[in-house]
Amino acid sequence: MKLKEIGEDAVVEAITRELRFDGRVEVGPGDDCALVRFGQNLQLLKTDCVVEGVHFLLETSARAVGWKALCRAISDIAAMGGDPLDAVITVAISPDRELAWLTDLYAGLNQAAANYGVNLVGGETSRSPGPVFISVALTGKVEKERLVVRSGGKIGDRLYVTGRLGGSLRGKHLSFEPRLAESRWLTENFRLHAMIDLSDGLGSDLPRLAKASGTGFEIDFSALPKNEGCSVEQALADGEDYELLFAVSDDVGAKLEQDWKKAFPELPLTRIGRLTEQKGDLLSKPGYDHFQ
Amino acid sequence: MKLKEIGEDAVVEAITRELRFDGRVEVGPGDDCALVRFGQNLQLLKTDCVVEGVHFLLETSARAVGWKALCRAISDIAAMGGDPLDAVITVAISPDRELAWLTDLYAGLNQAAANYGVNLVGGETSRSPGPVFISVALTGKVEKERLVVRSGGKIGDRLYVTGRLGGSLRGKHLSFEPRLAESRWLTENFRLHAMIDLSDGLGSDLPRLAKASGTGFEIDFSALPKNEGCSVEQALADGEDYELLFAVSDDVGAKLEQDWKKAFPELPLTRIGRLTEQKGDLLSKPGYDHFQ
Repeated sequence: MKLKEIGEDAVVEAITRELRFDGRVEVGPGDDCALVRFGQNLQLLKTDCVVEGVHFLLETSARAVGWKALCRAISDIAAMGGDPLDAVITVAISPDRELAWLTDLYAGLNQAAANYGVNLVGGETSRSPGPVFISVALTGKVEKERLVVRSGGKIGDRLYVTGRLGGSLRGKHLSFEPRLAESRWLTENFRLHAMIDLSDGLGSDLPRLAKASGTGFEIDFSALPKNEGCSVEQALADGEDYELLFAVSDDVGAKLEQDWKKAFPELPLTRIGRLTEQKGDLLSKPGYDHFQ
Repeated sequence: MKLKEIGEDAVVEAITRELRFDGRVEVGPGDDCALVRFGQNLQLLKTDCVVEGVHFLLETSARAVGWKALCRAISDIAAMGGDPLDAVITVAISPDRELAWLTDLYAGLNQAAANYGVNLVGGETSRSPGPVFISVALTGKVEKERLVVRSGGKIGDRLYVTGRLGGSLRGKHLSFEPRLAESRWLTENFRLHAMIDLSDGLGSDLPRLAKASGTGFEIDFSALPKNEGCSVEQALADGEDYELLFAVSDDVGAKLEQDWKKAFPELPLTRIGRLTEQKGDLLSKPGYDHFQ
């Protein structure tokens, strides 16, 4: 059976089924990051990649590609309530490519690293017979009491998203800012039940959060914070928003909304619905699937 | 200027020149692994990749590719005296590829993970417009007193290699065993000055160790442990041996050789030369360069 006949979630299920871990592993595949114990601390581990012809085009600025490559992984660390630490970078690239492309890529990686306090500690550079591949592996740390996984949502929880959704391909997918400060503020001040970053679109990522939490969900389509000119469908399905979606208990929602406005006056926080008892997908159209 | 006009070491130099680290980073790019402080412990970080058409062919067993992909990174952790812990895997693959190829790849990754005590804790699967690209990021830990870097070699040190060199493409490059037990035994019992794993070939990797140590070197070509049917040139230049090359002071060499025979009776350990005062490359032909 071909990968494109199966779909991304089923592919991941097939390859993770046989994995076995020792007792150090707190969270394995299936969340935004893995979580392992390292000495007395909790470490987050994430890997991600961007591929020429899939996530960017030949004519895309290499600097923007570097920014995007690292910020995608930082967004996943943020989605667990963590703080990024160290990254290692793999680049496979044709020997016919200009050195300047690679140094521009690293300028973008460096810029993101400096902005978010990441050390680029190493990497691997290899030949590619065709497109450029860039893989970023990023570590982070998280305090036990601030850790947020996808599976902690409870029936009745309010659902919030940061920022606005949809239309990312017009440019935001290359220049977005991972919601690291927002995540650290949220987890310092409130007990979040569940969180995920919106990389494939609300229409894919919300069902993942609800499924992991063992709940259903309902959303108020008229409340969705859309980027200018975007339809509800685009807000659900375009993907690459890199905003945070999180669930909190109903009784902290009011204070959270109030405090958020003082802490992040420029960035909207929108209540979009709630987790429900009823299972099943209430969305008309899923977000981006890598294989379909 | 194109990458192929420059060569791998100069490319790495160009992209690592601007990197800035905070005080947690003990060893940055340029050694087998990066070394960072994490809480009270020292963590090793390595990333590596294998690319279809470069490191393996379409007809190569996917299981062997998975084994190789993880074992290459384990070999680098061993080269620093460390113990591997957790890996995250990135795979970019065409949607037209069979699911069985991917599950076979993971069978090989799993086999290597089980053999060497690694947790496969997460990954990313993406579409590729062409070749399959697999990147492995691996963490490890190392006790401070057992850490071995490339730069600690001293003039007069004896140089040893494990196993036999050359001819790896005949099969060993897909089925090699990273010298993890050997490295852990060596660093437990002897104070090694410098170590590197032979991935690009002795002809490339020995000059790197000597350069990092600020020394020259001389080797006894007649002493090189060659795989059957291999010339000296092949032992120097074929690459993908994944053996350990290390430097120790002259006065521990005799005991080390004696004890090695008892600990690893099946695996040769060969004294191949020494580190010298005179700088400069005494080898006729370098090993594998990714861009030339």
